[in-house]
Amino acid sequence: MPIPFNRITIIGAGLIGGSLARAVKQLGLARTVTIGDLNSDHCARALELGFADIATQDLAESVEDADMVVLATPVLTYSSIMQAIAPHLKQGAVITDTGSVKGQVIADIAPYVPAHVFFVPGHPIAGTEHSGPDAGFAHMFQDEWFIMTPTNNTPLTAMAEVQALWEGVGSKVVTMDPAHHDSIFALTSHLPSLLNFALVDAVAELDQHTQGEVLQYAFGGFKGATRLAAQHPITWRDVFITNKDSLLTSLDKMQESLAALSKAVRWNDAAFLEERLTRAQTLRRSLIDKK
Amino acid sequence: MPIPFNRITIIGAGLIGGSLARAVKQLGLARTVTIGDLNSDHCARALELGFADIATQDLAESVEDADMVVLATPVLTYSSIMQAIAPHLKQGAVITDTGSVKGQVIADIAPYVPAHVFFVPGHPIAGTEHSGPDAGFAHMFQDEWFIMTPTNNTPLTAMAEVQALWEGVGSKVVTMDPAHHDSIFALTSHLPSLLNFALVDAVAELDQHTQGEVLQYAFGGFKGATRLAAQHPITWRDVFITNKDSLLTSLDKMQESLAALSKAVRWNDAAFLEERLTRAQTLRRSLIDKK
Repeated sequence: MPIPFNRITIIGAGLIGGSLARAVKQLGLARTVTIGDLNSDHCARALELGFADIATQDLAESVEDADMVVLATPVLTYSSIMQAIAPHLKQGAVITDTGSVKGQVIADIAPYVPAHVFFVPGHPIAGTEHSGPDAGFAHMFQDEWFIMTPTNNTPLTAMAEVQALWEGVGSKVVTMDPAHHDSIFALTSHLPSLLNFALVDAVAELDQHTQGEVLQYAFGGFKGATRLAAQHPITWRDVFITNKDSLLTSLDKMQESLAALSKAVRWNDAAFLEERLTRAQTLRRSLIDKK
Repeated sequence: MPIPFNRITIIGAGLIGGSLARAVKQLGLARTVTIGDLNSDHCARALELGFADIATQDLAESVEDADMVVLATPVLTYSSIMQAIAPHLKQGAVITDTGSVKGQVIADIAPYVPAHVFFVPGHPIAGTEHSGPDAGFAHMFQDEWFIMTPTNNTPLTAMAEVQALWEGVGSKVVTMDPAHHDSIFALTSHLPSLLNFALVDAVAELDQHTQGEVLQYAFGGFKGATRLAAQHPITWRDVFITNKDSLLTSLDKMQESLAALSKAVRWNDAAFLEERLTRAQTLRRSLIDKK
C-alpha cells in the first residue's frame, strides 16, 4: 500500500494533536510528521516521545510542503494561527481542524484560507481528562466518531483526504451541518463540561475547612461527576465562548429539568420523582452497552 | 480468632446489602448471614449467589436471634421496616443502617427502637451505578470510609460493635455529627447525583430524533457526567427527599457558580473564565491521586 500522505503537519502537541501524531506515525500514514507548537517544551517532548519527525515553534515553517495541516490547539487560537501560516501553505494543501465547535471556527478560519488551499472543518469525538504531549496515545480515535462539517466551498476531493486520514487512524467518519453539530454537542459534551466545572467551582468557593472535608469524602460519585473539570481550562474556555448560543440554550433546557426535579424534592413529590428518575435511569442505562 | 458475630441480618439484598453480605460471608465475620427482603426474587438470588445462609421475605422472622441488624434498603422504607421488626429484635441487639442521609433517618428510626435494642446510624461511602443482588461484590468497602453518626442515646458498646463489623470488611471508620454529615454529603454526593439525573432528564425531554442523535454521539464526557443517573431511582428519590434542606442549599451554591460561569460565557469574559476554570482544574486534579 502506498503511504497516503507525504507530509502531515499537526499544529499543537497536546492531547489530541499528540495522539493523532502517534497514530499517524505508528500506522505509517505519512512519510513525515511535523509538529508546530509555540511551546518549546512541547516541541522538545514531541521529539523525545518520538511522535514527531520535526518539531518547531515556527508555525509558518512547520506547514511548508505539508499536504495536510491539522489544527489541534484551543479554538480561539485558530484565526491567529491561520494568519501566520496562510502565506506558507503549498498549492493544493488541505487544512482541517479538531475543534469541538464548528460554526464559529469556520467563521474564524475561512477568511484566511488561500484560494489554492482547501479547508475541511472536522471534530474527532475523543479525549480524556488529561492534557499535554505526554497524555496522548495512538489508539485514541479507534472506533470513535469523526465528524466533518463541510461548507458550500469544501471540495469533495479534500473531504476524501480528510476522511482517509481519520479512517486511517480507525475513526468512523460522518458528515453533519456545522450549526446542527454545534447544537448536538452543546448538549452531549459542552454542557456536561460546564456543569462539571460549576460543581467544582462551588466547592472551590467554600471556606477552607468545609472544602477539605468535602474533598476528603469525595467518593467515586463526585469524582465521576467532576472528571471533566480536570480537562484543559483554555480548551474549554474557548469552546464555551465559541459555542455560547447553543451552550446557553442547552443550559436553559437542563435548568428546566433541574427546576422540575428540585421543586418535587422541596414538596416531597415522591411520585413525580420516581417517574422522572426512573425514566432517566432507563435512558442512561441504554448507553451502557453502546459504544 | 473467635467469630465476631453469631447472626447478622441484612435487610435488603441490593447493591449495598448484597456486598456487605458477601464480605461478611467471605471473611467469616458471622456464623449465620440472614437476608430479609420483601422481594422473593431477591431472596432466591441471595441464596443462589451464596451470600445468605437464610433468606426470607418475612422481615420479622429475619431479625429473630440476630446480634446485628443492618438496614440496606431505600431510606424512606426505614420507618415501616422498623415497625415490622421492632417487636422481634432480641435483647441487646444492635441495629444500624447504610443510608446516605442521617438526620431524617435518625428521626424516622429512633421512635421505633425498643429500650433493649441499640441503634447506631451509619453510612458506608461506597457504591457503583449498578443495583440489585447480582451487582454487589465482597471488596466494595475495602479502604473506603464508613461514617457513624451517633446520637446522645447511642451507647459506646454498640458503636464498638458496628465499628468492628465495618472495620472487619475493610472500611475506615470515623464518627460525625448527623447534620454535619448531611451537609457535607449533600455537596459531595447528593447534588452530583441530582445534576446527573437532571442532565439525562433534559435529554429525555428532547424530541425523539434529536434525542437519538445526542445519544449516538454521547462520548465518555457525557457518559461520565451522567453515570450517577444509572443508579437506583428509588434509592435516590429517597435520599433527595430526606436530605432536602442540605441538598437545596448545595444546589443554590452550585447555581451561583453556574450563573457566574454562564454570564462570563455570554459576555466573552475570557479572563474570568480562564481564572475560574483553571482554579477548578487545579482543585479537581488534587483529587486524582487521592484515595
